[in-house]
Amino acid sequence: MSTSASTVRPLAASDVDAFTYETDVLVVGFGCAGAAAALAAEAAGAETVLLERQSGGGGSAALSGGEIYLGGGTAIQQACGFADTAEEMTKFLLAALGPDADAEKIRQYCENSVEHYEWLVAQGVPFKPSLWDSPTWVPPTDDGLMWMGENAHPFCDLATPAPRGHRVTSDGFGGKVLMAVLGDAIASSAVAVHTDTSVRRLIVEGDHVVGVTAGHFGETVTYRARRGVVITTGGFADNTEMVAHHAPQLVGLGVNSDGGDDGRGIRMAQAAGAAIRHMSAGQVGISLIPGMMVRGMIVDELGRRFINEDVYPGLVGQAALFEHGLRVWVILDEQGYDEVPENERWGVAPHFVAETVAELEHEIGMPEGALQNTVAEYNRYAGAGIDPYFHKSARWLRPLRAPFAAIDVRRGIAPPEYGAAGGGGAEVFTLGGVCTTVDGMVLDLDGEAIPGLFAAGRATSGLHSWGYISGTSLGDGTFFGRRAGTAAAERR
Amino acid sequence: MSTSASTVRPLAASDVDAFTYETDVLVVGFGCAGAAAALAAEAAGAETVLLERQSGGGGSAALSGGEIYLGGGTAIQQACGFADTAEEMTKFLLAALGPDADAEKIRQYCENSVEHYEWLVAQGVPFKPSLWDSPTWVPPTDDGLMWMGENAHPFCDLATPAPRGHRVTSDGFGGKVLMAVLGDAIASSAVAVHTDTSVRRLIVEGDHVVGVTAGHFGETVTYRARRGVVITTGGFADNTEMVAHHAPQLVGLGVNSDGGDDGRGIRMAQAAGAAIRHMSAGQVGISLIPGMMVRGMIVDELGRRFINEDVYPGLVGQAALFEHGLRVWVILDEQGYDEVPENERWGVAPHFVAETVAELEHEIGMPEGALQNTVAEYNRYAGAGIDPYFHKSARWLRPLRAPFAAIDVRRGIAPPEYGAAGGGGAEVFTLGGVCTTVDGMVLDLDGEAIPGLFAAGRATSGLHSWGYISGTSLGDGTFFGRRAGTAAAERR
Repeated sequence: MSTSASTVRPLAASDVDAFTYETDVLVVGFGCAGAAAALAAEAAGAETVLLERQSGGGGSAALSGGEIYLGGGTAIQQACGFADTAEEMTKFLLAALGPDADAEKIRQYCENSVEHYEWLVAQGVPFKPSLWDSPTWVPPTDDGLMWMGENAHPFCDLATPAPRGHRVTSDGFGGKVLMAVLGDAIASSAVAVHTDTSVRRLIVEGDHVVGVTAGHFGETVTYRARRGVVITTGGFADNTEMVAHHAPQLVGLGVNSDGGDDGRGIRMAQAAGAAIRHMSAGQVGISLIPGMMVRGMIVDELGRRFINEDVYPGLVGQAALFEHGLRVWVILDEQGYDEVPENERWGVAPHFVAETVAELEHEIGMPEGALQNTVAEYNRYAGAGIDPYFHKSARWLRPLRAPFAAIDVRRGIAPPEYGAAGGGGAEVFTLGGVCTTVDGMVLDLDGEAIPGLFAAGRATSGLHSWGYISGTSLGDGTFFGRRAGTAAAERR
Repeated sequence: MSTSASTVRPLAASDVDAFTYETDVLVVGFGCAGAAAALAAEAAGAETVLLERQSGGGGSAALSGGEIYLGGGTAIQQACGFADTAEEMTKFLLAALGPDADAEKIRQYCENSVEHYEWLVAQGVPFKPSLWDSPTWVPPTDDGLMWMGENAHPFCDLATPAPRGHRVTSDGFGGKVLMAVLGDAIASSAVAVHTDTSVRRLIVEGDHVVGVTAGHFGETVTYRARRGVVITTGGFADNTEMVAHHAPQLVGLGVNSDGGDDGRGIRMAQAAGAAIRHMSAGQVGISLIPGMMVRGMIVDELGRRFINEDVYPGLVGQAALFEHGLRVWVILDEQGYDEVPENERWGVAPHFVAETVAELEHEIGMPEGALQNTVAEYNRYAGAGIDPYFHKSARWLRPLRAPFAAIDVRRGIAPPEYGAAGGGGAEVFTLGGVCTTVDGMVLDLDGEAIPGLFAAGRATSGLHSWGYISGTSLGDGTFFGRRAGTAAAERR
């Protein structure tokens, strides 16, 4: 990490002979946050250049499921018959996004969520007004609305439930559709896009950020930004050293990204004085079919349940990884298996089948008695429709009956389109990053804005801290990307 | 955080009219790391000044139990009949101190552990050659050697067990004795100690750290350090904002420190370019009597065991806090209670007693059946002397029999001397900090040493990453403090 080519130290503007390019606002990274920032900056009247390391836009956003967390009464929610308010949405996100979640960001996000939905629709993002009414990662249909655990324990007791997962209409994952729409909007705008351009260092004048250096097919080019630089370079899940230093539980797992989440934008900002936070936080997608899990149970290596199976599956993934090292199994019976809708099965075959629970626990390698106790206790209460241990909804409770099957979550089961799926086991990304204001201004260790430096998306610590709900990445990136672009454009 | 009085940004030396003091090596903080650094710098021929915010030395080290993790065949180990090697010590620490533990620091530490023991003895630190042979936080006797989990699962299978907790001879906690000895050594040396001196900012010339500014009874004083500044200012457990940003699970708990672990040294170094790591890591001391726990069991709020009770109790504390939110109970029977040595009881009274497990779980408020299943399963195997779930040693296994008692760990039970004890529940400290070389040189985001800046102790990410074993704080602080002081003194 010590060669001058790899240094992230800011370069003094006085050391730049002549800038290759000049613009008002420079946006670094063409994912959803960068696209939103560039569109907003240009709409605010700023000459805008958007830089992208790869040969085209999309970023990790294009690979995502395409859920955007929106609420407070969007047209889609209304069409599906749900009343919702910004207040209830705020309560849910404060509870779901973890300790030290940014209350001011959440407040702004929820109060302006309907407006943001309408902005997305105005860009051309399609949403279908129909609900998928069962826990899932992404609906196997083209349904446009889904629950993100709002109706499950403990959230159903903390805020009035309403489904807020707005899934971009798509054949399969919706992220590619979202980025195609935003890409078209960029193409129709006056924003200049420079691809194959890999930003290396910030350029500073005293404490002010005034540009960047970048590599472009082996050449070094320099950009001067008269009003501001907006970093939207993504997280650091692809940087194994950063992950080891900050997020130990993500080490060695598959990564959910476009391969460019190398953390360089975060480190460049840090070298210019930026503070970071929530760096140990991460989200994990694990290979399981929520429709199977919810009809059976998920257990750890000692055969013990650890969460209500009807909650948003991302929370199951976090618990499985952070508390049980991913050594978890989905247990279900024949009736449960048969009840899973055909389009939700993805051709999964159980790894173990057995006529009795005793045989099943032996096959898996659990201590004798471990799973037998769990199933007996589950069944004893499920007959009465209650789950005093984890509070799964009565809708999903009934005694499990032989024969039984077990699915080893670490082996991976879903088709390539479903990410972790392809590789097997789990795929992760990071949630920590630089500290920013609600207008995307990057804060230093004194809590002061660094003049000229803005950021949005996964390079920042955004809406979430240690908690995570799908849709808050695309939501956070586009919403705060817009604000950062606007704030940079308005800076003089 | 925005007033100039609170800024941690480095001050340019050109903005200092005249330095109040000049020296070769400046050490900031008079805990164990600072004392060791100052003694080493002075021994290496450097004029040395040691700054301390409080009116006297001691730091958090003076409040500690006084265990120092040492091995490889110390005189104390030999006198107690234990053979040990640096290799086995290295294996244990690599396993115990967590993922991304600094292998080179551990190697240096273990290979030089006997030399470090002898240096401590040469300073006058007393150790008694007798073993306390049962899991404990600190021996209730004056025994000088103790197990730190080396003989418990999983460590006993990973490295040849030898006890390596060297406890400074003392009436009660030994940290005060250690710091009295090191304080006497400082007083007998040529090191100048400036107390009531609170360091505010680093002073830099270009990239070089050349001094500090400090407050002293309302005045601002400046120090020039010709060779180096060594930061030994402790962790950040007392800084609620830093804890919220980096270590969410420590939020709101009692703190084990002298009140000065405000993280300012870490932030000052960051503002000068230092990289940080392992910031979410923390250690927790919880209010339980290991001698009771090991003779019974520890369970979570669903009545389930989660660890072998014979391991080092700090690991029980980490599992209780990080995986079970401290909602844990010690369960034991009358025979177990009676068998706990009188001097290990600290007058504890159970919070719940009952004739049956069913009554006990009802009293505690667990789901009906939860604890009954656990005790039945424990007893079924304990009769055969095995624990297939958590591998507690046969030495501590036997079926539990009515009547039963439960101790609510969150209520706090131990006497004031035992920290958490006084307040009840738990006391924590942080393990993350700035990145350093084995010679205490502070590294920037490029992995390059920042010229003139050194650090040791809890301001750094030291031997540990996310794992922790008692004795590695005083051990790390004094060992790497010495190395940092020497390296600073030898810098030209």
